[in-house]
Amino acid sequence: MEFSALLTSVGINIGICLLLFSLYSILRKQPSNVTVYFGRKIASRKLKRSETFCLDRFVPSPSWILKAWETTEEEILALDGLDAVVFVRIIIFSIRVFSIAAIICIFLVLPVNYYGQEMTHKLIPSESLHVFSIENVKENSKWLCAHCIALYVISCSACVLLYFEYSSISRMRLIHITGSVMNPSHFTVLVRSIPWSAEESYSETVRKFFTNYHAAGYLSHQMIYRSGTIHKLMDDAEKMYNSLKENSVEMQCQTKIKGCCFCAGPTNSFAILPRVKDKGAYGGIDLVGAEKECSAAFVFFKTRYAALMAAKVLQSANPMSWATDLAPEPRDVYWSNLSIPYRQLWIRKIGTLVAATAFMLVFLLPVTLVQSMTQLEELQRKFPFLRSVLEKKYMSQLVTGYLPSVILVLFLYLVPPTMMSFSAMEGSISRSGRKKSACLKVLYFTIWNVFFVNVFTGSILRALNVFFSVKDLPAQFGRAVPAQASFFLTYVLSSGWASLAIEVMQVFPLTCNLFRRCILRIKDEPIHETLSFPYHTEVPRILLFGFLGFTCSILAPLITPFLLVYFFLAYLVYKNQILNVYISKYESGGQFWPVAHNTTIFALVLAQIIALGVFGLKESPVASGFTIPLIIGTLLFHEYCRQRFLPIFRNTAAELLIEMDRKDEQSGRMEKIYEELRKAYCQFTLLANRHSSKPGCLSKQESENDTESGKPGKPPMKVLELWTAPTHLDEPEPSQK
Amino acid sequence: MEFSALLTSVGINIGICLLLFSLYSILRKQPSNVTVYFGRKIASRKLKRSETFCLDRFVPSPSWILKAWETTEEEILALDGLDAVVFVRIIIFSIRVFSIAAIICIFLVLPVNYYGQEMTHKLIPSESLHVFSIENVKENSKWLCAHCIALYVISCSACVLLYFEYSSISRMRLIHITGSVMNPSHFTVLVRSIPWSAEESYSETVRKFFTNYHAAGYLSHQMIYRSGTIHKLMDDAEKMYNSLKENSVEMQCQTKIKGCCFCAGPTNSFAILPRVKDKGAYGGIDLVGAEKECSAAFVFFKTRYAALMAAKVLQSANPMSWATDLAPEPRDVYWSNLSIPYRQLWIRKIGTLVAATAFMLVFLLPVTLVQSMTQLEELQRKFPFLRSVLEKKYMSQLVTGYLPSVILVLFLYLVPPTMMSFSAMEGSISRSGRKKSACLKVLYFTIWNVFFVNVFTGSILRALNVFFSVKDLPAQFGRAVPAQASFFLTYVLSSGWASLAIEVMQVFPLTCNLFRRCILRIKDEPIHETLSFPYHTEVPRILLFGFLGFTCSILAPLITPFLLVYFFLAYLVYKNQILNVYISKYESGGQFWPVAHNTTIFALVLAQIIALGVFGLKESPVASGFTIPLIIGTLLFHEYCRQRFLPIFRNTAAELLIEMDRKDEQSGRMEKIYEELRKAYCQFTLLANRHSSKPGCLSKQESENDTESGKPGKPPMKVLELWTAPTHLDEPEPSQK
Repeated sequence: MEFSALLTSVGINIGICLLLFSLYSILRKQPSNVTVYFGRKIASRKLKRSETFCLDRFVPSPSWILKAWETTEEEILALDGLDAVVFVRIIIFSIRVFSIAAIICIFLVLPVNYYGQEMTHKLIPSESLHVFSIENVKENSKWLCAHCIALYVISCSACVLLYFEYSSISRMRLIHITGSVMNPSHFTVLVRSIPWSAEESYSETVRKFFTNYHAAGYLSHQMIYRSGTIHKLMDDAEKMYNSLKENSVEMQCQTKIKGCCFCAGPTNSFAILPRVKDKGAYGGIDLVGAEKECSAAFVFFKTRYAALMAAKVLQSANPMSWATDLAPEPRDVYWSNLSIPYRQLWIRKIGTLVAATAFMLVFLLPVTLVQSMTQLEELQRKFPFLRSVLEKKYMSQLVTGYLPSVILVLFLYLVPPTMMSFSAMEGSISRSGRKKSACLKVLYFTIWNVFFVNVFTGSILRALNVFFSVKDLPAQFGRAVPAQASFFLTYVLSSGWASLAIEVMQVFPLTCNLFRRCILRIKDEPIHETLSFPYHTEVPRILLFGFLGFTCSILAPLITPFLLVYFFLAYLVYKNQILNVYISKYESGGQFWPVAHNTTIFALVLAQIIALGVFGLKESPVASGFTIPLIIGTLLFHEYCRQRFLPIFRNTAAELLIEMDRKDEQSGRMEKIYEELRKAYCQFTLLANRHSSKPGCLSKQESENDTESGKPGKPPMKVLELWTAPTHLDEPEPSQK
Repeated sequence: MEFSALLTSVGINIGICLLLFSLYSILRKQPSNVTVYFGRKIASRKLKRSETFCLDRFVPSPSWILKAWETTEEEILALDGLDAVVFVRIIIFSIRVFSIAAIICIFLVLPVNYYGQEMTHKLIPSESLHVFSIENVKENSKWLCAHCIALYVISCSACVLLYFEYSSISRMRLIHITGSVMNPSHFTVLVRSIPWSAEESYSETVRKFFTNYHAAGYLSHQMIYRSGTIHKLMDDAEKMYNSLKENSVEMQCQTKIKGCCFCAGPTNSFAILPRVKDKGAYGGIDLVGAEKECSAAFVFFKTRYAALMAAKVLQSANPMSWATDLAPEPRDVYWSNLSIPYRQLWIRKIGTLVAATAFMLVFLLPVTLVQSMTQLEELQRKFPFLRSVLEKKYMSQLVTGYLPSVILVLFLYLVPPTMMSFSAMEGSISRSGRKKSACLKVLYFTIWNVFFVNVFTGSILRALNVFFSVKDLPAQFGRAVPAQASFFLTYVLSSGWASLAIEVMQVFPLTCNLFRRCILRIKDEPIHETLSFPYHTEVPRILLFGFLGFTCSILAPLITPFLLVYFFLAYLVYKNQILNVYISKYESGGQFWPVAHNTTIFALVLAQIIALGVFGLKESPVASGFTIPLIIGTLLFHEYCRQRFLPIFRNTAAELLIEMDRKDEQSGRMEKIYEELRKAYCQFTLLANRHSSKPGCLSKQESENDTESGKPGKPPMKVLELWTAPTHLDEPEPSQK
């Protein structure tokens, strides 16, 4: 690839991005797209909307960029919680570290590469890209020390920045914990694997156990029920009721829309529903009683400290019974997993691990198979009757040019929902836990399939082989990575930048909206979904580009400016999305930072190993020799951070909780908290309870089934929620991204 | 190797063993050897000794075998605690599983191997050994299924037996915990990394922290001091005092010996010592005050549950300060490690891990170097002046035949003390923890250097290479292990049986004793050392033979009878040693069982992988196919056991401790326990305190320095201990074994 071709590609990509961003700035001003681009504001009822027609609506403007730029971290924390801040911090960290990397790479490494061999240089535009990479440095060159210095600078600055980020995010997490005074999860312990007894119910067993052994702290408990047939019937009835009511409701509502700004007032909540569907009032059937008790319960304690104690200690002499764990927040509970028998968990974990690994490894096999099918000759050979069709020129261009990548993209869409369902099967008790687990799986998947498989030129078996012969690892990498560095350069350029444009455009919801309006000609407000932030797709994406940056910046220094542009754009785009589109439905309390930290350390060490291999191949013993202490140093730094910061993300400090308890006792707030506590966790809450302000009261079906399925299809009942308790909705994750 | 040669070897080994055992049965009857063979009985003052001369003393008798055979598990538990029982259980487990293995291997696998190829068999004695191994089965033979069946039977029976053992040892551990009512460690938490403050002492900081956050449970605390110059001076003074006193004391004592049976009465304890060396009475110097406070303390709690809580929870928002841990038993505390700053621990752990691995990998390099030096030609070439000496026939035989193995044995003696000092450097807070850690290190060392290096015919690099190319592992093993199986057979026969004879003979103490009596002509009672059981050398040895058994029994079925004999002998010998020689100075509470369990599972899986490789090479897809589910099943079983039983060995169940607390409160025993607690942990106790019955009060120097050095040299002061508080002595580990 020549430098001029790269420039052309840059030009085209800049053009596309500019176009899409301008288009976005126009589309977002259209009232018909308000549900696509302002989900968050609708949900929090902050949107003022005017239907007036003016020219301004069709002129692109950078106002959203300014808005996003000006938003401070405090605002994001207040709006969307710690997870969003951590996400933005990951981007800021990347910007910082790659600014340093860009300076050192452009001013030190690039000239060394360019003048690395005695050769007559052509004009720069017609130079091959490989002249700018480390491949151009001749063997045994003294100048390889420059690369070694650059590696040191990048590694050290990354470690220093990582340390300060970790430290500041730990501090934020502690503030987050001490700040959430009313958080019922601090008082609650999830007990699983309650031993079965023939004489008494699970509930009675729990009561006896905790009044016996934790008399001082025990407050009350709440059993978890398995959703049985009756619950399913009830659910169907609810759905039918909703779909029957929907039209009349919508009509009724629509007349008001212009008057009350999206029915924002609490006036037309369905006062009729609660009466009809009161809990336990279905013809006298005791619904909860009819459900089967699981061997799991939420146990409430009088103080946070007592709950922590009960959660952290091995309760019983049989470790497989009375398994305790701190409960997730009410809105974060993943109800359907609570009824999984505790004894199954370990085998489920192993099963999903195996399945996810298999999926990761064999993913490319069907893809390449289908892709090879689209090779023209192959197709013609296999289906001779297609010959006449395929011989037309535009047909052949279409098939060979676009189909393979379309197929890859379609297959890639399958990955996040698949990983999400793996994580759900794993038995995670919280939705944030499930998302974090899915995030890890998607991350491994992405790094494996984008980096390693590409480095070893598409052959999974070759990539696996390399890992199976540990000894040759540096040399193998040293040979393969520089050869592929210019591919990653264009990958950042095309896939990276475009992914941001697509993210901001919200292509999928926009298409659905357009389809609804233009093809189906439905003029009503479309059924609205407020998306929760898809950390499990976006965190891996950001980390992937960081990963490519660390591994390639020494080898192909030209990558750094493109990466910087990517991270700057990401900073603006995601801040905008956090402000306008996504809403945080549950919090993990910054649990994504350790993931980012570990990935960065992995990328650094891999970059160092690759450098070791390259220096070895270039016969520079000095540079190789200096790289080894760097690897050891980085690993030691990682271990130090694990010791110093990781426990904060795994456990809660007793000190803090005791202080919180004390404050609450002194202020007499405890009684109020106990009251809240009793209502906080409700497994089978019907629409009846949606009017209450408790954030946790969601119907189980509502909160999980949709999210799990990951389907774009929207059940008609969803529209109701917009009118009733919009801040606590729970819709499909945008797993199609 | 021919079968007849094997038989000869068996005969020779049986002869040697019989000879040594007979010799032992005579030697143990000699009054002069009483300190060598009855250390335990002397220590517990149970020995009745007669100096009368009779013929019976010189006739070998199997009485010790009968005695060992008849001793029940309960007796061992009462005498030597849970660790000894676990050790015996490991042997019993091996006997059981290899009985099954022997039956199936001799009656099913051996005939299949023998008739594996169409060949004219010679008379059995002149057959090559390889005819009896799997190498004799021809490729693609249907009969390989027999090996597969045998593998299934052995694996399944091993798993079933492991399960029941784990379960019963867990039960014993729980009983051990609930049985030790007066154990002060249940009430005590070790706090490390107390934050430093300029205004107040560490002691004050601890008091404030625990009265603030653990007011309900906190009882008192005791600081840990760094031993400074004054303490060293004091110590030297003590030693000098002892050596001056020794002779006069011994004289004084000796006159009484015949009368009072080893001075067993408490009458002649040195009433003079306490008065002279009273704590803090060294010319008015406040000894304890003069020591420097460490940032560590023992904190005592009012209930066991409170202590458990404080130990298990993250105390502070900074995980590097206020690190808590349940304290070890007083006699188990490893004092000198308590003053290590907590922040150093992680780096110490990494450091010792690296050092131990390096030691393990490069151990054979100097050995082979020195051994190659003893090759005749090599020596002659390097040192031409030796030529005349070496050309003599008996000299050359000596040099080539014995020197190499002597050098290997001498080098091997270095291993346990080295690993022990690595484990001490690691920063373990308890002596049992240090021993367990050393046991693991010795185990890895032994398995690596005996099994893997031998399998890959002595080349460490080749062995490492095999592990670095994971993919070919089964095939490589399948090729290499059967070829070496007959070597392992002779290894069990010679090294295994002989090691037991040497163990029972106590060669090293016996030699010292003889040297003292015959060369130095010292007729006094020799300075006596009661040895604590060297689990860190004996557990790895037993496990190694189990490991060889599992990996080789399918391939070379002839190994199983020899193994069975080994384990039977081991059962008798070690029981005898537990009864007579060793004394348990501290308890780990059965922590060696998980080690044995894991090693057995590793051996099983490795055996299955080797079988997979062999079946692959013999082109038996059915047998290979059936082996894979077996591997998966074994790994799943291991994971299940980890879930089901391991937490019992890592944590103490709250349930049990609460019940114990309750009982003590009801019986009013608590006050007494608190009183004991205040005196339980004493870091700088002088001889003064040895008269008290508290087991924990040992001088730090006495309890650690000797044990650490692992030197056979005995400081003269040791003799005193026999007279004063013999049950709580603490002498060198017999790490030279």
